[in-house]
Amino acid sequence: MANPEVSRATIGRLPSYLAFLENSPKVSHEPGATISSSVIAKELGLGEVQVRKDLASVAGSGKPKVGFDVAALTESIERFLGRRRLEPVVVIGAGRLGTAILNYNGLAEYGFEVIAAFDRSRIKMGDPKIFSMEELPEFCKNHGVTMAVVAVPDYACQEVCDAAVDAGISKILNFSSAKPEVPSGILVEHLNIALSLAALKHTEG
Amino acid sequence: MANPEVSRATIGRLPSYLAFLENSPKVSHEPGATISSSVIAKELGLGEVQVRKDLASVAGSGKPKVGFDVAALTESIERFLGRRRLEPVVVIGAGRLGTAILNYNGLAEYGFEVIAAFDRSRIKMGDPKIFSMEELPEFCKNHGVTMAVVAVPDYACQEVCDAAVDAGISKILNFSSAKPEVPSGILVEHLNIALSLAALKHTEG
Repeated sequence: MANPEVSRATIGRLPSYLAFLENSPKVSHEPGATISSSVIAKELGLGEVQVRKDLASVAGSGKPKVGFDVAALTESIERFLGRRRLEPVVVIGAGRLGTAILNYNGLAEYGFEVIAAFDRSRIKMGDPKIFSMEELPEFCKNHGVTMAVVAVPDYACQEVCDAAVDAGISKILNFSSAKPEVPSGILVEHLNIALSLAALKHTEG
Repeated sequence: MANPEVSRATIGRLPSYLAFLENSPKVSHEPGATISSSVIAKELGLGEVQVRKDLASVAGSGKPKVGFDVAALTESIERFLGRRRLEPVVVIGAGRLGTAILNYNGLAEYGFEVIAAFDRSRIKMGDPKIFSMEELPEFCKNHGVTMAVVAVPDYACQEVCDAAVDAGISKILNFSSAKPEVPSGILVEHLNIALSLAALKHTEG
């Protein structure tokens, strides 16, 4: 990978490059076939500079005047997005939101698979993909899980994040409004539905 | 409101100011009681300049050396957040994610109430808060709804956003990966779980 810190905006466009490379009749899949970033830019209605920068960040620069080898470029994007081997993710909290995420189909596009949910309550244990919190450390170790989605009420967030960190989780996507304290080296990203609505409400159209 | 465009970061801190004003034993609720932004900053562990800026954006400046009237400041923040009258929001798409949002309790903190969900399928119509898409325009008109959360598969996103706009919705929080085209004046904010995970994965701890 040319640049380990690829912007969120670039990551957001990668699935569309991949879909174009895989499905467009304008792309040849003969061995050795090439494609230029200007063709991709034109077909997708994006700026050429932007496309060149996006592709450079995951696949290096193409050959001058020729562009990218189609197969190699496709593989580079797939590898970056983790399509070849989906990154396993667990959900902590098996309430309505947690089970919605557990059963959400839209994650594979970006290379993720939610493989289990964990909950304190044993009521939900009928579902074979839902486990008790006590099983989290061993599960994460056995399945190589380092990413978790936290979908619990605010009051439970800190406790659950502590347990996740103890279980080897280093990256947390937090749906609660709480701001848990975590050791350095652990990343928490907040995805707050209410705050997103509030920001939207107070933005002028 | 002093400034119609209040930053997302500021909005994110408003509930904690409100909780402090309402619940802290350090805040007097005697008529005419005042509080300074430096006290608030110290108690909440925030920077004084930040607190002063945050409060100025929703309640104007306090009196020099005295600060804010507690009751007036509380009311200003409550009014900004819509606590006095929750903003009604509808969800379009009553699948797992949509019903999770419909039943989510965390929105009132930021002044929102999800009052109904709409779906094309009649299967889910057993729930009294779930309606058919045909009922959307009249419902939004009767309840003064201008904000919608869209929780449908990517392929349905454009169609659903068209219907929402026709029904008088001007602000849309979109959970799908699709980027719908909307008329100017209509705002769409994207909240993409998969993209958030991908950005988190590729950020160094």
